[in-house]
Amino acid sequence: MNLSVHILKMAKAAKGASYALALVGGHEKNTALKAMARALLKNQDYLIKENARDLKAAQGAGYSMALIDRLTLNPKRIKAMADSLLETAKLKDPIGEILKTIKRPNGLLIKKVRVPLGVVGIIYESRPNVTSDCAGLCLKSGNAAILKGGREAIYSNKAIFKILKRVLSKTKISMDALQLIESSDRQAVHELLKLDELVDVIVPRGGEELIRFVAENSKIPVVKHYKGVCHVYVSHQADLEMAHQITMNAKVQKPGVCNAMETLLVDKAVARKFLPPVIADLQNRGCEIRGDQTTRVIVKDGIKKATQEDWRTEYLDLILSVKVVNGLKGAIDHINTYGSHHSDAIVTKDKTEAQQFLDEVDSACVYVNASTRFTDGYEFGFGSEVGISTDKLHVRGPMALEGLTSYKYEVYGNGQIRQ
Amino acid sequence: MNLSVHILKMAKAAKGASYALALVGGHEKNTALKAMARALLKNQDYLIKENARDLKAAQGAGYSMALIDRLTLNPKRIKAMADSLLETAKLKDPIGEILKTIKRPNGLLIKKVRVPLGVVGIIYESRPNVTSDCAGLCLKSGNAAILKGGREAIYSNKAIFKILKRVLSKTKISMDALQLIESSDRQAVHELLKLDELVDVIVPRGGEELIRFVAENSKIPVVKHYKGVCHVYVSHQADLEMAHQITMNAKVQKPGVCNAMETLLVDKAVARKFLPPVIADLQNRGCEIRGDQTTRVIVKDGIKKATQEDWRTEYLDLILSVKVVNGLKGAIDHINTYGSHHSDAIVTKDKTEAQQFLDEVDSACVYVNASTRFTDGYEFGFGSEVGISTDKLHVRGPMALEGLTSYKYEVYGNGQIRQ
Repeated sequence: MNLSVHILKMAKAAKGASYALALVGGHEKNTALKAMARALLKNQDYLIKENARDLKAAQGAGYSMALIDRLTLNPKRIKAMADSLLETAKLKDPIGEILKTIKRPNGLLIKKVRVPLGVVGIIYESRPNVTSDCAGLCLKSGNAAILKGGREAIYSNKAIFKILKRVLSKTKISMDALQLIESSDRQAVHELLKLDELVDVIVPRGGEELIRFVAENSKIPVVKHYKGVCHVYVSHQADLEMAHQITMNAKVQKPGVCNAMETLLVDKAVARKFLPPVIADLQNRGCEIRGDQTTRVIVKDGIKKATQEDWRTEYLDLILSVKVVNGLKGAIDHINTYGSHHSDAIVTKDKTEAQQFLDEVDSACVYVNASTRFTDGYEFGFGSEVGISTDKLHVRGPMALEGLTSYKYEVYGNGQIRQ
Repeated sequence: MNLSVHILKMAKAAKGASYALALVGGHEKNTALKAMARALLKNQDYLIKENARDLKAAQGAGYSMALIDRLTLNPKRIKAMADSLLETAKLKDPIGEILKTIKRPNGLLIKKVRVPLGVVGIIYESRPNVTSDCAGLCLKSGNAAILKGGREAIYSNKAIFKILKRVLSKTKISMDALQLIESSDRQAVHELLKLDELVDVIVPRGGEELIRFVAENSKIPVVKHYKGVCHVYVSHQADLEMAHQITMNAKVQKPGVCNAMETLLVDKAVARKFLPPVIADLQNRGCEIRGDQTTRVIVKDGIKKATQEDWRTEYLDLILSVKVVNGLKGAIDHINTYGSHHSDAIVTKDKTEAQQFLDEVDSACVYVNASTRFTDGYEFGFGSEVGISTDKLHVRGPMALEGLTSYKYEVYGNGQIRQ
């Protein structure tokens, strides 16, 4: 069978399964998720054996240590995958929720009811846990899932998928509700992205290059974020000790993630006082500093010159660009011009200033006196997420269970006709 | 200036204006809308004079009477445009609404706050009232608007736009918040559809050909419906008199709109009793009937044979396809296979059957014992709409004020850092 026919068949099977899955009750879905968690733990040896094949290939191909780390399955990580399914099982079933009830003067009763999207396509890179995490979130929200992981994780993903499907075969949920694209040919993704009549949304997870490829080639709506160029702005009204702590946390606690800070903005009125100790502290933690002109006047040594390019760069690494700005307006302008509309924070004791920052910074998550690192489904209390959106349509910020749903209007009449 | 530079400049101006507009209060927006309504009425003679230029060109080009009717402005229609702006002014300001408040164990307070989308692009055909209706809805929801009407309405649209902008010049809202693309070159639309960093959503309104052109060429998310192939299903448990009234209303009250019925489905158990009188009644109203085999056995005369193509066709005219189906399941399968996920109704006295229809028909609006013709912003109590969505992402069904909004998470801390 050629690739185009194969992917079409897969999507049709998923669509077919999605209708019945939309009607499956919460208890039944949770039972399936819990059985999947048990099955992953029970088949730990098999998973580790199959994962070893991927690891061997990755080592042979000379992949980076970081990638090999992301690829690795071990008992702790398999336990985390199982736990994630159990956590998802515990969440409230979003499906069937009445979002609004409207009674019209003509007697029509309109209920806005939460329903699944239908078929969700998820395209991701090397972390094999995404396979079970996303399968769990899609099933819980009543959606069929078409999963496409990175080629470097293919044996791991196939093994996880096999275990999940075996569990499904013992439930009333159709096995067709979970689909895995095994081909490593990028053409497979191309074929999937054409099927806008069968697939309701595509969520790409990974580097900017993957996401741009998906966004530019998809006929299906895409929920995405290209990158996280997150900012912390330190006002002259900040508690400078708090600002120091937040700066350190946002940059060094986990620099390789999208909600880590990439640019520090400091009000010129406090730059001389604030910058020297915080830059010293960052440098002690191994962080490279790239500063604007004023920063390099204030802290003379060991600071590279920041270019225009730096203001738009997501380093995902122990590198920080620093700019001294002219008050709140300067900070807001910088963020709206160079940022990626992801997560941005102000540190200030002044409530009016804080509110202006929240109102005017055009980002999914805006913070007062807290680290940008909290942009995360779990930290928001939503549970696991399929991704973070910097788009404004459908879902913005963490895309968790609710982001995987739509709604329909159910209208109850007793013979109403339009005049 | 070439077209590409011109459209880019326009979109940049709109984006710039959108930041300030997002902060404008409800009172100020309403004052502007009411002044616009007054200005349209006051400039009625000018509008009719400019409209006459479009009408003359349309007559010269031999356009259809239907198109010329849609294009025509007269005192009654100008009054309706003004009234629509006044109605929009009366609606509750959606911006700033707190959609959810979350208190986290670490003390973070998270508010999910409704915000404008930013810049909304609306691409439409010959009705000039869309210019003022959509400008009003966009301003009320805090969005800058880029409008592109049909070339046949260009003088009318320019005149309306000139009046609206003149009003804006007397308010605190930037004149750049309203933009009209005057070029009749389709390349202008192409250029607009590339600007995904400046424009947040595109809503195409018009025929399927226009909508497909937009959907296939847009890098910007599109909210749309291609067509409305709406169904009424008459169950053997229906009140047949009610079913007769609903059938007539859904087909003949206004056949040229997307929420009119295109296919009547009848349970085989009542087809012999139900069909003959209703088909006679429809034919008396000038409606052409295209029936399946069984329908043509029951009603022998004057019924054309329905083809596979008919089941997918939006006639937008006094034509109806009729099919006799094998009970509820047959009806649901037909609708989910051939329908357009717009609006579908069941007529039945049985509540269980009704609920199964509502649950399993995968459409934006599903009705029990009411005409499909109610799918409309006003009829739902939402006010004027920019369009109807059969997509599942972001907005489904009537796209009114709320459909023109997004949200952001405002997070209030007192020094929280991630552990």
